[in-house]
Amino acid sequence: MPAIPANPDRLLADLDHLRTIGAVGTGVSRMAFTDQDIAARAWLAAQMAEAGLEVTVDPCGNLFGLPPGDAPCLLVGSHSDTQPLGGWLDGIYGVACGLELARAALEAGGPRIAVVSFQDEEGRFGGLGGSAVWAGRMSLAAADTTTDADGVSFGAARVAAERIGPAGAIMGEVPPSRFSAYIEAHIEQGPALEAAGLALGAVEAIVGVRRWTLTFRGEANHAGTTPMALRRDAVQGLGRYITDLNTALAPIVTDRTVWTLGRITVDPNAPSIVPGAASVSVQMRDAEAARLGRMRDTALTLAQEVAAARGLTLEAEEGIALDPVAMDPALVDRLAAGAQEVAPGRWQHMPSGALHDACNVAAVLPAAMLFVPSIGGISHNPAEDTAREDLRTGLRALAAALGEDITRA
Amino acid sequence: MPAIPANPDRLLADLDHLRTIGAVGTGVSRMAFTDQDIAARAWLAAQMAEAGLEVTVDPCGNLFGLPPGDAPCLLVGSHSDTQPLGGWLDGIYGVACGLELARAALEAGGPRIAVVSFQDEEGRFGGLGGSAVWAGRMSLAAADTTTDADGVSFGAARVAAERIGPAGAIMGEVPPSRFSAYIEAHIEQGPALEAAGLALGAVEAIVGVRRWTLTFRGEANHAGTTPMALRRDAVQGLGRYITDLNTALAPIVTDRTVWTLGRITVDPNAPSIVPGAASVSVQMRDAEAARLGRMRDTALTLAQEVAAARGLTLEAEEGIALDPVAMDPALVDRLAAGAQEVAPGRWQHMPSGALHDACNVAAVLPAAMLFVPSIGGISHNPAEDTAREDLRTGLRALAAALGEDITRA
Repeated sequence: MPAIPANPDRLLADLDHLRTIGAVGTGVSRMAFTDQDIAARAWLAAQMAEAGLEVTVDPCGNLFGLPPGDAPCLLVGSHSDTQPLGGWLDGIYGVACGLELARAALEAGGPRIAVVSFQDEEGRFGGLGGSAVWAGRMSLAAADTTTDADGVSFGAARVAAERIGPAGAIMGEVPPSRFSAYIEAHIEQGPALEAAGLALGAVEAIVGVRRWTLTFRGEANHAGTTPMALRRDAVQGLGRYITDLNTALAPIVTDRTVWTLGRITVDPNAPSIVPGAASVSVQMRDAEAARLGRMRDTALTLAQEVAAARGLTLEAEEGIALDPVAMDPALVDRLAAGAQEVAPGRWQHMPSGALHDACNVAAVLPAAMLFVPSIGGISHNPAEDTAREDLRTGLRALAAALGEDITRA
Repeated sequence: MPAIPANPDRLLADLDHLRTIGAVGTGVSRMAFTDQDIAARAWLAAQMAEAGLEVTVDPCGNLFGLPPGDAPCLLVGSHSDTQPLGGWLDGIYGVACGLELARAALEAGGPRIAVVSFQDEEGRFGGLGGSAVWAGRMSLAAADTTTDADGVSFGAARVAAERIGPAGAIMGEVPPSRFSAYIEAHIEQGPALEAAGLALGAVEAIVGVRRWTLTFRGEANHAGTTPMALRRDAVQGLGRYITDLNTALAPIVTDRTVWTLGRITVDPNAPSIVPGAASVSVQMRDAEAARLGRMRDTALTLAQEVAAARGLTLEAEEGIALDPVAMDPALVDRLAAGAQEVAPGRWQHMPSGALHDACNVAAVLPAAMLFVPSIGGISHNPAEDTAREDLRTGLRALAAALGEDITRA
């Protein structure tokens, strides 16, 4: 399989420049449609144009660099917006890889590769909004009503997309039918690759998420005058639930299943009052929908048992429920082959525990993702980093995997 | 033992009138030095004067009704201020009992009984402030610097004491040396008497309190990308601690020991982030200082073990530490004898799980307390109530117990 002659030095030079746009210490702040985000997109658009790609900005602010020709081609990218204070690689690594691959492929005379930076992946507004609208999973009208923390709507903010430029850029729709498949490179944002001593991960699925809020409700009482035997203490139910949930889930889960009780609210939350109510968020992630269903049933049954045994009542409010998204098996095989070529024995198949634009794009195109390690598993933080050699290896694996036109795979 | 001819009908009439001062629905709002508090104290002062007691208001706003004569006499009372929205009996029951006993004793020609309503027991400012200053446990200058939720100081608020009146009232010090002993009647504010089917409780001790805040500190991480095996999840430590603390304390405690984990704070407290820190308030109450010490040691050792087993660190910040306050044994015997006389077999010795003015007064005078039941154990709430027959029984028990001059006991 011929590799695209992509240049890791150019990739790193691009990334080094991009981290100066919106730089805050070692981190970056480029929330969607801020001046910093627009500046980064404008710089990317200029590189695309200079490379000979046709620059198009769609109404959501998604930025495309398209190779000459009309036949469907491969799309490579991610997002260039960041968390309010994020790291220097989250999202932009995949965009910069797409830019270098498209540029190198154009220089080499093929294959045809387009690059994209989706908008608002990080959720200044709804999160994953740009790719959701592009893939037809949300209407632009619905996206327009989402607001940021200050009440600014996506609809009002997206007029800034017109400032992306460069001169000659086209404002218009770029339908998914222009593409044959989607590849997204991304930092892992977790510690699994580093812990295993590996350089690359071929993502087979993006995990599904089930979340709900459980509230144990008892009776608030004076902490001095209420004997233990007469209490209906909601925190006692909470403590037992946190502990017993591990035991209850153990027979169901795999090493890659995760569950998190991340938010706790106690009422009235006073040292001298027996807690009358305790709420906890229960979030579960797994790559298999059936397993998530069993986990949900187990977790709710346990909560009912814990409540009943302590004279508490239980309220369960279901929140986010996202099914797992399988990556395209043929594309995963291609990425795995590329990984094996450049890092023999130093890669693995793995799920993505985080959501990515590929979740949305997979609804309309074959899609797959390649992960590079995150040092210490840290992301959404200025300390986010990846060894420069690993950044190079990721590009080389993509170049090896995508050398043959994906539409002929 | 001759009983004081106290009149339960007058007691109930006084209580029924007093609940109209600051009434909010079935509850009462008379925070210290508010117009409602001053109005209640003025009405009490008028009743004292009418009964022939000398009315004196000290610089803290503590209101005394003193019988003629100079020899030390018995002091009976409690407080007439309330929580921001409290019940109709908390505090005022003891003051009204004191008023009726002093009045009836004066009418009957003896024994000499004084009545008091201490100020700010409920803590608009510091809590128990009036009795603390009176008993020399806090200087007036220190009390003056305490502030309410709006930043008003005790020092600024207490000028309202001058408005208590009535005409002829004395503003001045009333030193503890004027008294031989202190008796405080109070609603239980807990469910123990009701649950046991009893009418009266002779309080042997006011429990001590030890409190600290424990913080389990791990590492905040992405809830999707961080495998369970690589997490240092503070909430997992918290859950185990809540549960195991019950087991660890079981060999140490009595039926009357209580412990409460009432306030929980999680950081960053987000459903999608592995909790980096979890704090919990641990409050323990028992009538024996030695037991409280063993409980403290056990609870801290367990916390260290739980933290160490999960790769967490532990911070322990000690808060309130109040030693138990024993009531005067001879006075407790007197109250027990009175209880047995009016409610044979329907009373018990018991600790007070709540703090009372008697905690402070016990530092300078022999002191004891008598409890009447609280319906449903409810207090600090407009639903607070006690059966009228129980209110009568409490007064009759005091009248029986205190008929013989306490100074000759």
